[in-house]
Amino acid sequence: MSNEPIALAKALASFEALWSPRIVSRVNDYDVRVAKVEGEHLWHVHDDTDEFFLVIDGELHIALREPAGERTVTLPTGSVFTVPRGTEHKPYAPSGAAILLFEPTGTPTVGDRHDEIPDHVDVTTGHSLDP
Amino acid sequence: MSNEPIALAKALASFEALWSPRIVSRVNDYDVRVAKVEGEHLWHVHDDTDEFFLVIDGELHIALREPAGERTVTLPTGSVFTVPRGTEHKPYAPSGAAILLFEPTGTPTVGDRHDEIPDHVDVTTGHSLDP
Repeated sequence: MSNEPIALAKALASFEALWSPRIVSRVNDYDVRVAKVEGEHLWHVHDDTDEFFLVIDGELHIALREPAGERTVTLPTGSVFTVPRGTEHKPYAPSGAAILLFEPTGTPTVGDRHDEIPDHVDVTTGHSLDP
Repeated sequence: MSNEPIALAKALASFEALWSPRIVSRVNDYDVRVAKVEGEHLWHVHDDTDEFFLVIDGELHIALREPAGERTVTLPTGSVFTVPRGTEHKPYAPSGAAILLFEPTGTPTVGDRHDEIPDHVDVTTGHSLDP
């Protein structure tokens, strides 16, 4: 990990891939990841961990399947939301967005259980940021 | 914790106190906190945890006492940095800044060891955000 500050805009400009997070920092055994997103991710669930979203740019929607039913939360630029562990969710961003994620190192992008994985979704635990 | 997204600008507008973090979200046993800062914090060290900083607005400096000597990192708006556990550090922001922190729930603002605490520094593990 870098021992210098990282500008998120520069980190985001260093790659083009969608739904393919880059690890910008580590905090104990957690990753701070950034991703460019556009279109739909997939329904998935992390059984053992919450997942934090911060929208750096654009607007992100997260569909949630909760005990009371399905709902969608909308995160404009500069807003945050944590999806609780065990909650099926599907992020999507019709107009595109840049997001920051906190989650335990090793957490896969598609969770522990998920729908069929579409070609545009990268199955990863996060890529290194190119220097 | 809220089960709706939180706009960081709105959270920051809900209080005036400096160096007095508000908890905007929880991720497992970690807090996401926001703080308004201006002037100097104090030299302190977290023995057992890293501490993540993201600058939402303004510019933050963090003085670091590392084995090789003292240095300062500068974080403009939109940049991130993690202070490693065990590293004495002193954040400061002559012109003021708004920051987001990610650290284990219960982490005190002044660390485990610290200089004499000035009156303007709030000793806290983070306050609740007013609804």
